[in-house]
Amino acid sequence: MKNNTMVIDFYEFTMAQVYFDSNEKDKKVYFDVFFRKNPFEGGYSISGGLDAIIDYINNFKIEKEDIEYLRSTGKFTEDFLEYLKNLKFTGDIFAIPDGTPIFPNEPIITVRANVIEAQLIETALLACFNHGTLVTTAAKRITEAAGVPVMEFGARRARGIDASIEASKYAFVGGCSGTSNVKAAIDNDIPALGTMAHSMICDADSEYDAFLRYAKSNPDNCIFLVDTYNVLKSGIPNAIKVANDYLIPNGFKFKGIRIDSGDLAYLSKEARKMLDAAGFPDATICLSNGLNEDTINSLKGQGAIFDSLGVGDNIAASKEIMGGVYKLVATQKDGEIIPKIKVSEESTKTINPAYKRVYRFYDKETGYALGDVLALNTEAIPKDKYVLVNPDEEWKTCEIENYTIRELQVPIFKDGKQVYQMPTVRERKEYCTNEFKTIYPEIKRKANPHKYYVDLTLELLKLKKQLILETRENKGKAYTKKND
Amino acid sequence: MKNNTMVIDFYEFTMAQVYFDSNEKDKKVYFDVFFRKNPFEGGYSISGGLDAIIDYINNFKIEKEDIEYLRSTGKFTEDFLEYLKNLKFTGDIFAIPDGTPIFPNEPIITVRANVIEAQLIETALLACFNHGTLVTTAAKRITEAAGVPVMEFGARRARGIDASIEASKYAFVGGCSGTSNVKAAIDNDIPALGTMAHSMICDADSEYDAFLRYAKSNPDNCIFLVDTYNVLKSGIPNAIKVANDYLIPNGFKFKGIRIDSGDLAYLSKEARKMLDAAGFPDATICLSNGLNEDTINSLKGQGAIFDSLGVGDNIAASKEIMGGVYKLVATQKDGEIIPKIKVSEESTKTINPAYKRVYRFYDKETGYALGDVLALNTEAIPKDKYVLVNPDEEWKTCEIENYTIRELQVPIFKDGKQVYQMPTVRERKEYCTNEFKTIYPEIKRKANPHKYYVDLTLELLKLKKQLILETRENKGKAYTKKND
Repeated sequence: MKNNTMVIDFYEFTMAQVYFDSNEKDKKVYFDVFFRKNPFEGGYSISGGLDAIIDYINNFKIEKEDIEYLRSTGKFTEDFLEYLKNLKFTGDIFAIPDGTPIFPNEPIITVRANVIEAQLIETALLACFNHGTLVTTAAKRITEAAGVPVMEFGARRARGIDASIEASKYAFVGGCSGTSNVKAAIDNDIPALGTMAHSMICDADSEYDAFLRYAKSNPDNCIFLVDTYNVLKSGIPNAIKVANDYLIPNGFKFKGIRIDSGDLAYLSKEARKMLDAAGFPDATICLSNGLNEDTINSLKGQGAIFDSLGVGDNIAASKEIMGGVYKLVATQKDGEIIPKIKVSEESTKTINPAYKRVYRFYDKETGYALGDVLALNTEAIPKDKYVLVNPDEEWKTCEIENYTIRELQVPIFKDGKQVYQMPTVRERKEYCTNEFKTIYPEIKRKANPHKYYVDLTLELLKLKKQLILETRENKGKAYTKKND
Repeated sequence: MKNNTMVIDFYEFTMAQVYFDSNEKDKKVYFDVFFRKNPFEGGYSISGGLDAIIDYINNFKIEKEDIEYLRSTGKFTEDFLEYLKNLKFTGDIFAIPDGTPIFPNEPIITVRANVIEAQLIETALLACFNHGTLVTTAAKRITEAAGVPVMEFGARRARGIDASIEASKYAFVGGCSGTSNVKAAIDNDIPALGTMAHSMICDADSEYDAFLRYAKSNPDNCIFLVDTYNVLKSGIPNAIKVANDYLIPNGFKFKGIRIDSGDLAYLSKEARKMLDAAGFPDATICLSNGLNEDTINSLKGQGAIFDSLGVGDNIAASKEIMGGVYKLVATQKDGEIIPKIKVSEESTKTINPAYKRVYRFYDKETGYALGDVLALNTEAIPKDKYVLVNPDEEWKTCEIENYTIRELQVPIFKDGKQVYQMPTVRERKEYCTNEFKTIYPEIKRKANPHKYYVDLTLELLKLKKQLILETRENKGKAYTKKND
């Protein structure tokens, strides 16, 4: 088993040395993982990566060679290195389960731990969250646009072999029907899919020969790749001919065709006509070729006819960055939790302080999610009537009734022990599908999606403002007051 | 050791079954890895990923459980599964070494192997090539734009933990001065870098206190993060004060500051003035905050003053896709090599056929690379005078003299045995730096880069045209001729 514990940014260690030197290593702190912007200019994200985070923490171990390395930098004391040698994560983690629709500025994961432990897990935790959430979200957006089964086959464009395995898994949770990646299929018990490549047709004496040989070896799975030479003049006629010459006479079905280049809208409509005319109305049409949400919507707008899609790059290796961050929201002193804030010149970058809980309000009748509310950990949320307050524009309020409330974060680790049973990948997919139904279509649409409400309770809002003021007044000039 | 052999697209197996059924499993084939477009709309790419490819092939082993899985799909014969059980890669691989400037449509890697082996390694080989080349290229572009040391700290935004380790390594080869990722630093003997995070300052009673504590624990490495509250009114004054209060009196240096938000151009200039005025002209300024090639160029245009940069997202997780593909270029029958082509409606997608060699021509006087030429494997290249021919517009020719020639691909595997000694990561970086100097600045620039010549010999060009014609005439209508 490869030990990846040391995927830790070096500054976590230099800071840890400071906490160690200050006798603060046992100080409890609270960190939130959140993000500021949905990827794909969308109105939502779908959480992912918790499985990898759990693995990382359960296997956290700084090896002897790692200690050697740290020692060799000359930046750490022997006491501190000794302390690292036996370090385990002993804190608590709460998180919103994988596959849940999530929104900017709410805590997806909250870590409560000794400050050094909390710092050292930051890098890996974010890498896992960002990758998992990015791919799950990409898959959800694309499968939602498609409205037909989408096969994920992006392994070759993924960020390396390992990333490809994870990407295929998250793609399935996000809605793909299966993957081309056999390793991911085996590891996660998800369907492995695929048929044939152009190379096989180029290699053969003729397209017909390639199709025939393929049909003989895979009679149950005959999806012919018809765009090697000419879709309408060669590919489809050859596919139909092999169906008539071999498949049908031998009692097999002509399952369908895949078109991987050219004008997919035009070709798919022509292909449908040809297949129907040849007596194969059940032969399916699969389209692929760098498809993304926009090209899929465009295909649909043009009346393209397809039964399934294949998507590579834009799920496994999408041109996006998920910007999950890890921010200190509170510390604990003599048992008391002290809220912390990070104020920024840009008001959208000022974080939501304090140890919090996230509640999702659902309309009792329709089941739709009405909004999320961040509350102080100690606050009770009224069960009957509630006033949502827009944290940026407080005059925007909305009184709601007849709702149910759900707390989104669940305990994952308690005192360093895993207390959460990770659902299987198939369970996560089903959960994700159901969760996604609770989100209003207006939030999901591509063009100018409606902004989902993530509000603060009045108490939290008051605290936030007060902390902002205090910070501006004190911290910024602290040295002039305290030390001059 | 995790066995990732099965990162193989399912269709490679279904096709392999066909070859197996046709008694063609021992047929030698030739595949080229190439790409059609440089990432970042640039004029070049830098090769990467060969190390991961070598690892994959050396560890190629289909395990008993994998065979079980394949059997469970019901799509494979027992003979074939038996054959897979002992399968090793026994072919030859030639490749352009990691860190070399490479260009569209030339073979970066050439695989000569039994058809089944050649197909089964495709997915992993491409995933490695695409990841390695993407990150190395991103790092080269960004470090080239920076002109000062660039620290890579993108682990948290990488595509998972494993991808982060690889990304940090390729970033170093591409020109970064070090990484925040300690695991990558240990594994590859490259510098681990980093100082402090905002959390530490938010957590402290004051910014001054945080700086002072940090200085006491890390007196040799004092780069203060000065943007938590207010760079000019608080961060820099506090840094200067800690330098005067603690660092200087105790014989340490005030190494510098890092600014991670706000208007970096303005702030850096003001910061320089303040540091100079306080008597610290040697205190360095490091800038970071989602920097990419464009923002770096913009900073320079505005006269921003900085000694180093930190870059995360845009190296380790850049918003780009590297589109390396793997195409059949020849097969072998009775000892004779038969060139193959894949023709596309889009002429730019028609591949360069045949088993080829790639030569780079260098100007003997300046050392600059004049262009690359693809030749048939058997062709000799004249040593004295050569006419470059643009393959798209043949009337564009260019006679060159006084050159040296270098064959770019080197043998990596011979009969399945590794014959190439992979240079260390540091050696690769040095090689990359030197190689990059041979590329004309006009190719490297961001705006409308000049197109580097990748030409075909007249013989290869002739063969390509002939194959295109043959394919159009025969393959496309093969079924009407041969089977109707």
